Amino acid sequence: MAEDLKQAALEYHEKPVPGKLSITISKPTATSRDLSLAYSPGVAEPCREIAKDPEAAYRYTGKGNLVAVISDGTAVLGLGNIGPLASKPVMEGKGVLFKRFAGVNSVDVEVEAESPEAFIDTVARIANTYGGINLEDIKAPECFEIERQLIERCSIPVFHDDQHGTAIVTAAGLLNALELQGKAIEDAKIVCLGAGAAATACMNLIIACGAKRENIFVLDRNGVIHSGRNDLNEYKATFAIDTDARNLDDAIDGADVFIGVSGPDLLTVDQLNKMAANPIVFACSNPDPEINPEAALAARSDLIMATGRSDYPNQVNNVLGFPFIFRGALDVRATKINEEMKVAAVHALKDLAKEPVPQDVINAYGGAALEFGKEYILPKPMDARLLTNVSAAVAKAAVDSGVASLPYPDFYPLTDFSRFEA
Amino acid sequence: MAEDLKQAALEYHEKPVPGKLSITISKPTATSRDLSLAYSPGVAEPCREIAKDPEAAYRYTGKGNLVAVISDGTAVLGLGNIGPLASKPVMEGKGVLFKRFAGVNSVDVEVEAESPEAFIDTVARIANTYGGINLEDIKAPECFEIERQLIERCSIPVFHDDQHGTAIVTAAGLLNALELQGKAIEDAKIVCLGAGAAATACMNLIIACGAKRENIFVLDRNGVIHSGRNDLNEYKATFAIDTDARNLDDAIDGADVFIGVSGPDLLTVDQLNKMAANPIVFACSNPDPEINPEAALAARSDLIMATGRSDYPNQVNNVLGFPFIFRGALDVRATKINEEMKVAAVHALKDLAKEPVPQDVINAYGGAALEFGKEYILPKPMDARLLTNVSAAVAKAAVDSGVASLPYPDFYPLTDFSRFEA
Repeated sequence: MAEDLKQAALEYHEKPVPGKLSITISKPTATSRDLSLAYSPGVAEPCREIAKDPEAAYRYTGKGNLVAVISDGTAVLGLGNIGPLASKPVMEGKGVLFKRFAGVNSVDVEVEAESPEAFIDTVARIANTYGGINLEDIKAPECFEIERQLIERCSIPVFHDDQHGTAIVTAAGLLNALELQGKAIEDAKIVCLGAGAAATACMNLIIACGAKRENIFVLDRNGVIHSGRNDLNEYKATFAIDTDARNLDDAIDGADVFIGVSGPDLLTVDQLNKMAANPIVFACSNPDPEINPEAALAARSDLIMATGRSDYPNQVNNVLGFPFIFRGALDVRATKINEEMKVAAVHALKDLAKEPVPQDVINAYGGAALEFGKEYILPKPMDARLLTNVSAAVAKAAVDSGVASLPYPDFYPLTDFSRFEA
Repeated sequence: MAEDLKQAALEYHEKPVPGKLSITISKPTATSRDLSLAYSPGVAEPCREIAKDPEAAYRYTGKGNLVAVISDGTAVLGLGNIGPLASKPVMEGKGVLFKRFAGVNSVDVEVEAESPEAFIDTVARIANTYGGINLEDIKAPECFEIERQLIERCSIPVFHDDQHGTAIVTAAGLLNALELQGKAIEDAKIVCLGAGAAATACMNLIIACGAKRENIFVLDRNGVIHSGRNDLNEYKATFAIDTDARNLDDAIDGADVFIGVSGPDLLTVDQLNKMAANPIVFACSNPDPEINPEAALAARSDLIMATGRSDYPNQVNNVLGFPFIFRGALDVRATKINEEMKVAAVHALKDLAKEPVPQDVINAYGGAALEFGKEYILPKPMDARLLTNVSAAVAKAAVDSGVASLPYPDFYPLTDFSRFEA
């Protein structure tokens, strides 16, 4: 990160007041009468109603539009296990994006847990405070079991964004890239460098979108995950295939797709040159991609390239997903975010990239044309149509798959979120 | 509660949006550049700073002005053990008061705990998210051990408001009432009906303010707590005195002070008539006091009476305390709220009631004169001087008693809290 950006980021967080989020009161409090409704004695009445029927919490409290962003700080950005407190700026940042893009109120909770079990117990005990839980920056493989148990124990949506948010946006971009390169997902040879939380979820969702498991080569630090290895945890083992390929050099040969969720500069130009015609490279390591985009495009003019960075085309950015996925889930009071909802989000994102881009979005990104093609396979975060399209698709999938407690909202398509503000 | 107030309270909580609190973003988010500072990649920088030095969390996150209001829902208002979710309107209401009166950001956390130990573990694990913890509506005697252990385990202030907030406001009012009645606290015979969380804290603080333990008659459901009883838990046992008094009839004889934190209509006019000359009755059961104020004042014209209700003079209202106590504690980054700080708050409240009342406060309460005397022994919640006086007294006591991490603020006396808003 450039020194001036570092300094600007620190100042942004510090001044004029520390942090990025604040609480506001959404009801009148000018008079004694107002206060007697907000607190004692009036507040007893909604308490009584909720005691009679827990669902009344959605009528009388902020629960239904409130998502907790919860982390144990074990895998924060690319910084690693820096602990819960040091992860707080990220969690508050997530709250900024929830509010800014989808009108979702969000509070951060950083958990100092001595074990995954302690983390699970803690989150499960406070879960009912919220309408949904966004797990964040929890390391693999613990994150899988944590999410699984919390989904089982909680009656509200629990969603580990590093897994599924990343996977949804990646899958949407990949489907568009495949279409542009004239490849069918069923036939694509896919190499995934990295076998952590994001990689696992990406590959599972890509399989749900049509990719063949036997065509997917996942690599961890020890090379290709194949059926001859005996050092695999249960999550990695699901990707073990019968192959002679042992390392990236072997696996990349003739590959149609490379997905990097690993670290900087791990894909060489030589390896890129061994890929099939019209290849696709998602080099998502941040801030330094698996291969330098300029070098890659100079070597292969038939390439479609995406990164995790905002200063190159085709940014794979989670903000395209989680605010709108939770918006849709909350609006139909879904009890979980299931595979149907994730796939619906993939298709909504994929389809939106093919629509003509409004001038205000073009202007927000410097004024250059944004047209579906090699340099525009995913929508831009500032595109207000994400709210109408992605939230609606997720809400509809929740209703259709039977996990919604409310019907598809009559206020949809949601063109702004003023209805969630007082 | 009157039917129209009930209906108004439900509507207040439900419309136009459910609940009373909302999240706002306190920093700019208009451009891609803004978002790159608020979230990736800029956010990595404050994370790194906090990883190096945990205190940096106060510079770069909202922690320093954020109080969690946490309950297990076991003793909610007068409603009893209605469970954590049903307590949410109260906890959100507390957040309204924190923000409205002292600019403190507050979030509620409702904990479903299978035991006090589980509650303690849960709160301790999430505590560092916040700058302070306000425990709320937790039943006695569990609340004592819960608070004790959390104070020990947390490096931020932990304060059970039902105990100490109530005690501080009660003690302030009592000191003024004693002065008006011409009684010395050292000599006063005090009867306390109720031996729960609030009663225990009230008596402990009144003793810290000068009352003699042997002059205090505490009564639980089984009557006077005396040294011959063998059914007392460790908290009640500290109030056991050598006495022949066994019930309220015995104890009230010649008493100077009656403090009721029990239930409706438990003090009869006959018992009131047995009190000493110029008696003091704090009948704080809500909404129905231990004795009807009209009946009491008709029987004893030499009486000073306080209640928990806003529609009678001398309301013992926690909102006079907790917003300003936490404001002062946060402003000097106190590691705890100790006895010195509580006593400082008592004296600040007591002294403020003797100052001439500004016209805007008089107007806010119907325009009738408010002058120190039998019907005005405590300040009014809408009095802006609570912020200047109580917060300053608490902050100074924290500095003087060595629990403050920052010096007495140069921005004090705090006349508004705009400095905590972006």
